[in-house]
Amino acid sequence: MAIKLQNQGIEILCIGTELLLGNILNTNAKWLAEQLALIGLPHYQQSVVGDNPNRLKAFLLDASRRSRILITTGGLGPTPDDLTTEIIAETFNNKLIEDKSIVKDLKSKFQSHAQITKNNWKQALVPLGASILPNPLGTAPGIIWTPKENFTVITFPGVPSEMKQMWEESAKPWLVKNCPSEKIFTSKILKFTGITESSLAEKIPELLSNKNPTVAPYASIGEVKLRITAQTKTIDEANTQISALETQLKKIIGSHYFYGSNNETLPSVVIDLLRRRKETLSIAESCTGGSLAAAITAIPGASDVFLGGVIAYNNKIKKELLGVSNELLNQYGAVSEPVAKAMASGIRRSFKTDWSIAISGIAGPTGSTGDKKVGLVEIFIEGKTSSESIQENFGIYRQRTQIQKLSVVRALDRLRLFLLNKS
Amino acid sequence: MAIKLQNQGIEILCIGTELLLGNILNTNAKWLAEQLALIGLPHYQQSVVGDNPNRLKAFLLDASRRSRILITTGGLGPTPDDLTTEIIAETFNNKLIEDKSIVKDLKSKFQSHAQITKNNWKQALVPLGASILPNPLGTAPGIIWTPKENFTVITFPGVPSEMKQMWEESAKPWLVKNCPSEKIFTSKILKFTGITESSLAEKIPELLSNKNPTVAPYASIGEVKLRITAQTKTIDEANTQISALETQLKKIIGSHYFYGSNNETLPSVVIDLLRRRKETLSIAESCTGGSLAAAITAIPGASDVFLGGVIAYNNKIKKELLGVSNELLNQYGAVSEPVAKAMASGIRRSFKTDWSIAISGIAGPTGSTGDKKVGLVEIFIEGKTSSESIQENFGIYRQRTQIQKLSVVRALDRLRLFLLNKS
Repeated sequence: MAIKLQNQGIEILCIGTELLLGNILNTNAKWLAEQLALIGLPHYQQSVVGDNPNRLKAFLLDASRRSRILITTGGLGPTPDDLTTEIIAETFNNKLIEDKSIVKDLKSKFQSHAQITKNNWKQALVPLGASILPNPLGTAPGIIWTPKENFTVITFPGVPSEMKQMWEESAKPWLVKNCPSEKIFTSKILKFTGITESSLAEKIPELLSNKNPTVAPYASIGEVKLRITAQTKTIDEANTQISALETQLKKIIGSHYFYGSNNETLPSVVIDLLRRRKETLSIAESCTGGSLAAAITAIPGASDVFLGGVIAYNNKIKKELLGVSNELLNQYGAVSEPVAKAMASGIRRSFKTDWSIAISGIAGPTGSTGDKKVGLVEIFIEGKTSSESIQENFGIYRQRTQIQKLSVVRALDRLRLFLLNKS
Repeated sequence: MAIKLQNQGIEILCIGTELLLGNILNTNAKWLAEQLALIGLPHYQQSVVGDNPNRLKAFLLDASRRSRILITTGGLGPTPDDLTTEIIAETFNNKLIEDKSIVKDLKSKFQSHAQITKNNWKQALVPLGASILPNPLGTAPGIIWTPKENFTVITFPGVPSEMKQMWEESAKPWLVKNCPSEKIFTSKILKFTGITESSLAEKIPELLSNKNPTVAPYASIGEVKLRITAQTKTIDEANTQISALETQLKKIIGSHYFYGSNNETLPSVVIDLLRRRKETLSIAESCTGGSLAAAITAIPGASDVFLGGVIAYNNKIKKELLGVSNELLNQYGAVSEPVAKAMASGIRRSFKTDWSIAISGIAGPTGSTGDKKVGLVEIFIEGKTSSESIQENFGIYRQRTQIQKLSVVRALDRLRLFLLNKS
């Protein structure tokens, strides 16, 4: 049965006293908001209440009068302040029953790594008539339950990774099936790097005020995303419109800034390029301290092309493991093109790979000396027949982890461009 | 006249469609929540609505029935979608009048840095009877207005820096004067690892239902936090109560699970321990692929104790750079205690450090072979005179990045315990 959404169709409620005390940022609300927009089901209100039975009950009653669907996060865990399921059942005069599939799931999960506690069994209780929203990553499942006509509640745990997986696997398909909007919303995300949000936006002022498809920019560290959203009657119509706009956007913005779409990431794109070329990579990191390697190895299958690397955080290591000479270090300093080049050569020789990346820089907050200030980063890319040296100045006002992240993005992007253009 | 706050005393409303679309994180709500807690005026609900006149009006009417004070952010700017002041006046049947002090302020501000536009004059209009909340940093002032008995609305612009300055200079003093709180709230966060949230909670059922100070648990990957919050008349009283409860909690839960408080992280605690002992660390990572090194080097000053490491993602590297023998690899396989031990010895020898950590495991999603399933991780810690081998089974249902993260947490925690107990 399709649910007809009105203006006040969907709302989000995040449950947790930690949010009211300002201990944590409400990243769950932002993420869910983005996901709802992506499937063309915008919501009209977000709220936060604490772990307080009476407040929660009053809120649920109000929400059930004004909305068709309430999406909640938090309060599904095993501890006494996790009240969501219980209070939802109580609010709508329903009882909790033990769900056999959850009991089975709990048993299989605890068998392998920890002892199950009495508290955990609470997580197997759901209102009579509710469907289960399975939690593949944790022990707290959610529910999809329609306690009264025209009102459905969907619950998620507060742990972001669990919520996201459950959204993708169960809640999103359910919403797409049960809440069809008259128009289909189809989105595609284009990802750009090497250009700032404002420079990118200045190139496409008319397209940013497009009514359909819309184009909306989002910036994160080192990259800008453009979300194209088309409202159409058919998916074919949407794909045609999006594809035309995509071509136009890439042409105006500059296709070399574009690195991938939707779920592609810079590391996944670089790994794919290397895999297609049947080539291998090794890396030597100083200021990024392992975060380039971590970004690469977060991608399943990275081992096809990535052999490993050396974190030469200390100069001794640069000398002994990478063969950087004392002379180079003394003459140019650790953060210099000659040293980055020697690091790249050293690691490529030692790991016998087709390509290598070396990064040496000053991530801060201290470490500026003379001309070399916090934010200065030297990147060197070496291949069999060609190489490239890149110097970046990310600026002294940036945070340490920001400088590390920007260095990783820049190194991967330069290797990407290199792999696209060089033999 | 002091406002007597009841349970539903204060609420926060953030106005802006960008929040509903998930374009930005609601950092304003978190900041205001923290500030309210600090002055002992907790709030009971947070909400977000879009730039939609009807929704906003409906929300204001509801809030005026349930709350004494509504704090809003957003919608005070000069553009057509900035509707807050206008809609507030309309909701409570009041008219807008031009405020001379705002006109004067606008004139002086624009003289100095930009040309005033027609839109800007809109910002000088306030409901009859409202007090002005001056905005020293921008052109959008807020208001403090009591449109009906027992209901006051305080408006802020959405720009965080402006909101913060206005809070400090005007809103906070007003609240402290008009809503005197009998109590102040003081919090401390205790961080635990090596124990699940449910096992921890089972050890302290009575303390979790404490009324004052309260104890609330929060789980994230590999760790559990307990937030202690005391409501007292003085800060000294709070510190005494929190300190007593902290001692009690650590004793019951097991002090070895406790690793730090407030802003401390597992890497920062391990770095501090090594620094105090004037000892150094190197690491050899396989399945974690650089994420252990990245966690360590995210901390400023890590270079005092961390020399670097090798990411031996490929067996060839384990052999050539870490000196792991072919025999060990063939007999036991890469994910085995003997190989992890050889990796730890190899890196410690080569980097000449006091301590080393080696990690070898199967992060998935593929790679299970025979008895060795995804989630199996071998960790080896080697010191000058002692060593420890740890085998973990994180379970086949976990995601690759979760297994990597859990491995990092476990390795750092075991080194922490080692540093605390071994010479």
